Amino acid sequence: MALQMDAEALNAFLAVEFPQLEGAFTVIEVNEDRLVARLRVTDAHLRPGGTVSGPSMFALADVAIYCVVLSRIGPVALAVTTNASIDFMRKPVAGRDLRAECRLLKLGRSLAVGEALIFSDGQPEPVARCSMTYAIPPAKG
Amino acid sequence: MALQMDAEALNAFLAVEFPQLEGAFTVIEVNEDRLVARLRVTDAHLRPGGTVSGPSMFALADVAIYCVVLSRIGPVALAVTTNASIDFMRKPVAGRDLRAECRLLKLGRSLAVGEALIFSDGQPEPVARCSMTYAIPPAKG
Amino acid sequence: MALQMDAEALNAFLAVEFPQLEGAFTVIEVNEDRLVARLRVTDAHLRPGGTVSGPSMFALADVAIYCVVLSRIGPVALAVTTNASIDFMRKPVAGRDLRAECRLLKLGRSLAVGEALIFSDGQPEPVARCSMTYAIPPAKG
Amino acid sequence: MALQMDAEALNAFLAVEFPQLEGAFTVIEVNEDRLVARLRVTDAHLRPGGTVSGPSMFALADVAIYCVVLSRIGPVALAVTTNASIDFMRKPVAGRDLRAECRLLKLGRSLAVGEALIFSDGQPEPVARCSMTYAIPPAKG
Repeated sequence: MALQMDAEALNAFLAVEFPQLEGAFTVIEVNEDRLVARLRVTDAHLRPGGTVSGPSMFALADVAIYCVVLSRIGPVALAVTTNASIDFMRKPVAGRDLRAECRLLKLGRSLAVGEALIFSDGQPEPVARCSMTYAIPPAKG
Repeated sequence: MALQMDAEALNAFLAVEFPQLEGAFTVIEVNEDRLVARLRVTDAHLRPGGTVSGPSMFALADVAIYCVVLSRIGPVALAVTTNASIDFMRKPVAGRDLRAECRLLKLGRSLAVGEALIFSDGQPEPVARCSMTYAIPPAKG
Repeated sequence: MALQMDAEALNAFLAVEFPQLEGAFTVIEVNEDRLVARLRVTDAHLRPGGTVSGPSMFALADVAIYCVVLSRIGPVALAVTTNASIDFMRKPVAGRDLRAECRLLKLGRSLAVGEALIFSDGQPEPVARCSMTYAIPPAKG
Repeated sequence: MALQMDAEALNAFLAVEFPQLEGAFTVIEVNEDRLVARLRVTDAHLRPGGTVSGPSMFALADVAIYCVVLSRIGPVALAVTTNASIDFMRKPVAGRDLRAECRLLKLGRSLAVGEALIFSDGQPEPVARCSMTYAIPPAKG
């Protein structure tokens, strides 16, 4: 399926619609197979000890998979997350940004399903795995 | 199983260990059956439109279920979340705090499982449902 | 919300639509708060060692939560499971039937969410916890 | 990590330990990157209408990911499933076998995490996605 938004368009969309991200989240690459995004880790994302918090990883996966969906259906849709499942598998490396690699597994008329692996930047093994479902509102006639 | 920490002890623990919560999260009640907590919703938790973001609900469930586990095993443990599943079922009411009602379903030697229903304060129907698993480190001999 | 089907109607529906259950699954009680069902455990449900297999517990939760949905929307709907999350928490007791206690958490126009706790009959602590989402087909005009 | 069991060894193990599978499940390929397995679909796996049931897909994912774990730790372990999350995304094609493609995402001392995509044989798009966690018993000294 052809892309409706490239990385530049997705980043511009996020800057307007999600100003609370404050530029910490960036789509690096998107094509028909996958999307890669980065979270610039700041103090706000850390747990005591310097590791990235679970909710920050959840937020990264949520925005990244949302962007995969938007890359296919365009910026008009008000997709909302209805379900998420996440496995926290390793402790993120302190002081490293996070990288999310996402795939779209289903794009139906009313539901989309995607998944993400999250890595500490430069590490080969994922720190978390996440799958999410989005409800896509009906197109207006 | 007897409680090792009451609401006051849990709130004091969080103030020291999770200063980034900035007092927004409060355990209101804990007994052998359940724990009730509140998230004071601030601008940082909002999505455009005034509704509470998914990651904020995830973070609330994570801290609340973590507190249920601590209420049984005490403050020494370094429990970490290993898995979470969350269903976002309704849009939270704008301008309302969130309330989490949690139960502990299993407390094993190495794994604990709990669940939470999240409500917009004063509403009868839950906005989200979450279950989480925590890995409990082995006790030192 | 008023019930559209009682236990007797649900059991009659299952006998026609799911003959492969062979009467092993029975709705015992359904009211506006919950549904209770039983799985008569046979050799087909067992793992080596005499304990009930994970897929059998999954199947029990799936049928039981499906029945909660049907109890509210009636037998005409072709609801399909779209997501399930299950925690296996304790080993079922050998030689005991399983009991599922279910609640409906959301009944929307297109999605329903329910959850179940599964017990070895007569035991106070659950062997498994499950939440499921069903897609409800649009009503015909 | 080196493989401890190849496809032949896994199939021989299943024939002894899981006779109830009755040869319907076969590991086709296993290497350090992935495991591919097949479920020969019989009447016992079908829902009315000829499509494969959700519990049958769950069972396939469970055995397949279990085999990925065993391929790394050998046949001695009594790993048990502790958590599963599954998304049913498309209706399986009637009359086709199912194919599972699995990856191991984490192999820790006490927990392993793997995931599977399930396909109707010969189809490019997955019918289901599943992630599972297994608890690995401590090695005897």
